[in-house]
Amino acid sequence: MEKNFNALSQPEKLALLKEYRKPEYREEIIQKNMVLVKEMIAATVNEDTYIIQSINSIEELDKVCNTLTKRIREWYGYYFPELNFVMQDNEVFIKRIVQKTKKEFMQEYDLKISMGPELAEKDLDAILDFAKQVNDLYLQREKIIAYLESVMKIYCPNIYALAGALIAAKLLEKAGSLKNLSKMPSSTVQLLGAEQALFRHLRNKRIRPPKHGFILSHPLLMEASKQDKGQVARMLAAKISIASKIDYFRGEFIGDKLKEELEKQLKR
Amino acid sequence: MEKNFNALSQPEKLALLKEYRKPEYREEIIQKNMVLVKEMIAATVNEDTYIIQSINSIEELDKVCNTLTKRIREWYGYYFPELNFVMQDNEVFIKRIVQKTKKEFMQEYDLKISMGPELAEKDLDAILDFAKQVNDLYLQREKIIAYLESVMKIYCPNIYALAGALIAAKLLEKAGSLKNLSKMPSSTVQLLGAEQALFRHLRNKRIRPPKHGFILSHPLLMEASKQDKGQVARMLAAKISIASKIDYFRGEFIGDKLKEELEKQLKR
Repeated sequence: MEKNFNALSQPEKLALLKEYRKPEYREEIIQKNMVLVKEMIAATVNEDTYIIQSINSIEELDKVCNTLTKRIREWYGYYFPELNFVMQDNEVFIKRIVQKTKKEFMQEYDLKISMGPELAEKDLDAILDFAKQVNDLYLQREKIIAYLESVMKIYCPNIYALAGALIAAKLLEKAGSLKNLSKMPSSTVQLLGAEQALFRHLRNKRIRPPKHGFILSHPLLMEASKQDKGQVARMLAAKISIASKIDYFRGEFIGDKLKEELEKQLKR
Repeated sequence: MEKNFNALSQPEKLALLKEYRKPEYREEIIQKNMVLVKEMIAATVNEDTYIIQSINSIEELDKVCNTLTKRIREWYGYYFPELNFVMQDNEVFIKRIVQKTKKEFMQEYDLKISMGPELAEKDLDAILDFAKQVNDLYLQREKIIAYLESVMKIYCPNIYALAGALIAAKLLEKAGSLKNLSKMPSSTVQLLGAEQALFRHLRNKRIRPPKHGFILSHPLLMEASKQDKGQVARMLAAKISIASKIDYFRGEFIGDKLKEELEKQLKR
């Protein structure tokens, strides 16, 4: 249809458009147009969307789990305040209180006496029931991460292999899509997620520029000493930038090779 | 022990204290003291604590459920954007998307075409799995409310009968304990929860004082017309204030009578 229309001469086109303006076609044209537009909108939903929604959900769940765990720490703390001090990690705390009783914990940590009183069964159950729910939320977070990984293994295996699911997803989310990310120079990739610090530096040159954004939490960067961090970040960002271009143009999988190269370079 | 000590004469007391100072008793006294203090701390955990922790958890869950539902609305919206408009209530939205398929909804709401594309099963499951989790959170909220009610029916049946579980719990939480609440004049009860508005009024007299705090969401106040709200709030607060005093001194249950009286007064 579209092709035919373009092949027509100018006067023919005008005649055709005039024909279409007749009231009997009006309703049909609107309908057809609506269907076309809806199809075009539907086509914009792709792996980028899944990845962005997943990483946003994971970050939301992070916050939510922390808030609720704090609440349960306070509530459970009336029953067994000593446990709050010996168990600092939130996720571990929730996972363990739904499994073990106070008595078992007191034996495990060699506590003779607890400041918290014994509670009636229904009062304790109210807390533990809530804790189980929060434990399920932590598991839900794991499930979404697993889903995110399954999407990335097919859609952007090279970035995934290099950066891991969470960092890769954050980079994609910030860039908006794999297409956008693949167009970015590695120096931009290096600083994605450090926008605030970058603008702070641009406003006031005495504040040093940031060295890394989301990639900060990459194991290779975590291991690097403070004076090496800048260089490692630059090298990692360069590899990620290459990987994103390969992924976007559906090149072959060389993520593991890129990672090996990087690790070799770092050893020197 | 305590009684004996007080019955002693002044020189006898001093002699006894001197005896206790001997190093051989030191360790034992510290130990005994610790046990005593721990027991005293344990005794401060009571129904006030359960109520305050429950209502705080419920409010936290309110916020969390809303945040997560917004996230799911966005994610699910890529699949079926039209549903966001026809289903405004967050809880209903979550409850229903885990039960019905897109096809069923389209029939129910008489939608011919959706702008959202069909998703692969695993991509849809990722969303619905998350939605189920949030649905469980809504149910958890209900469970804690049921627990809260069960505590209040025994601990403060009169306030509960008059104000309902959520308002009663918020009043108690703000007052700090049933004891504190029972000491408050009814005008304070009326404004509990409206502190910000009250202080705004005190700083700037041109801003009108608030008429009600937490009790605003009471059915009797919701029904009242705008010009009646102040008076209804005053009368409701007066009854709650009486109820709190009866509950604190473990008087008999007259909550239903108080409520009837109030409703009669309001009819006139």
